[in-house]
Amino acid sequence: MSLSMYQASIPTFVRMLGNLSAILDKGLADAEARKIDPAVFLAGRLAPDMHPLPRQVQIACDMAKGGAARLAGVLLHNMPDTETTFEELKARIAKTVDYVKGFKADQIDGSEEREVILKFPGGEMKLTGQQYLLGFVLPNLYFHATATYAILRHNGVAVGKMDFIGQG
Amino acid sequence: MSLSMYQASIPTFVRMLGNLSAILDKGLADAEARKIDPAVFLAGRLAPDMHPLPRQVQIACDMAKGGAARLAGVLLHNMPDTETTFEELKARIAKTVDYVKGFKADQIDGSEEREVILKFPGGEMKLTGQQYLLGFVLPNLYFHATATYAILRHNGVAVGKMDFIGQG
Repeated sequence: MSLSMYQASIPTFVRMLGNLSAILDKGLADAEARKIDPAVFLAGRLAPDMHPLPRQVQIACDMAKGGAARLAGVLLHNMPDTETTFEELKARIAKTVDYVKGFKADQIDGSEEREVILKFPGGEMKLTGQQYLLGFVLPNLYFHATATYAILRHNGVAVGKMDFIGQG
Repeated sequence: MSLSMYQASIPTFVRMLGNLSAILDKGLADAEARKIDPAVFLAGRLAPDMHPLPRQVQIACDMAKGGAARLAGVLLHNMPDTETTFEELKARIAKTVDYVKGFKADQIDGSEEREVILKFPGGEMKLTGQQYLLGFVLPNLYFHATATYAILRHNGVAVGKMDFIGQG
């Protein structure tokens, strides 16, 4: 079967978000085992001007959610960024996975040339669907998933590369 | 134009490696500006049992190099991991970019179902070309590029997300 926009997006998002949720499980279990307040891990940052763990998870989720919606050409679905615990972050991931799983292949396939406009405080960026998926959504999704993983690992949580890669 | 295995691999590798090289430029310039021995940044790790910066760059390069070769079904091209300076790491990236640019679309396209066997100390993993690209090469490439970025940013280098994402 030929590679399709659907294959390169939805199953990829679902796999990475599933791995991210399992990484959070390991983080929470480690905090409990070492009697560390989970809030300590949640406040972790890789640099003073980088986001703490919850924001990393929220952005990873938003990349998948926004990616699915924009490629399908449907209205963006807002999810407020209110999570402050591991449990709430896992629920956010689960809700995002459910949302993206709701997209059918025929909504996403053929979106290679669909115009995607990203609005930023400083202006906007016009991309094709293919540029958006390969050059924006996937790098950002992996960036924020890696940051989440690295914050936990920096704090001594025994996660390994296979937790990140998961099911190939 | 339909999404193809070539489009999802070679231009994606070239863009990310180019951004990584520019991130290293900023790291070296910052070390010089702040009169910090660049070896300090190169020794940086996100956790005691994670790789230091040079190994992160080498693995990112190897993901692109191995990805291109395995999808095209050609022999793996070995590059020894000898780099110890920013300049040498940039040369490794440039050599890798040249190598992957040497692949033509018709060598990579149609590799969705090509069998890819990854050998590890503990055994082997059999994947289709599509699983290998989407579930192994890209996540690993972005993981190690993010780790490189985060090591520099953790050390106070003023890199930002646009340096990572670069040209969409």
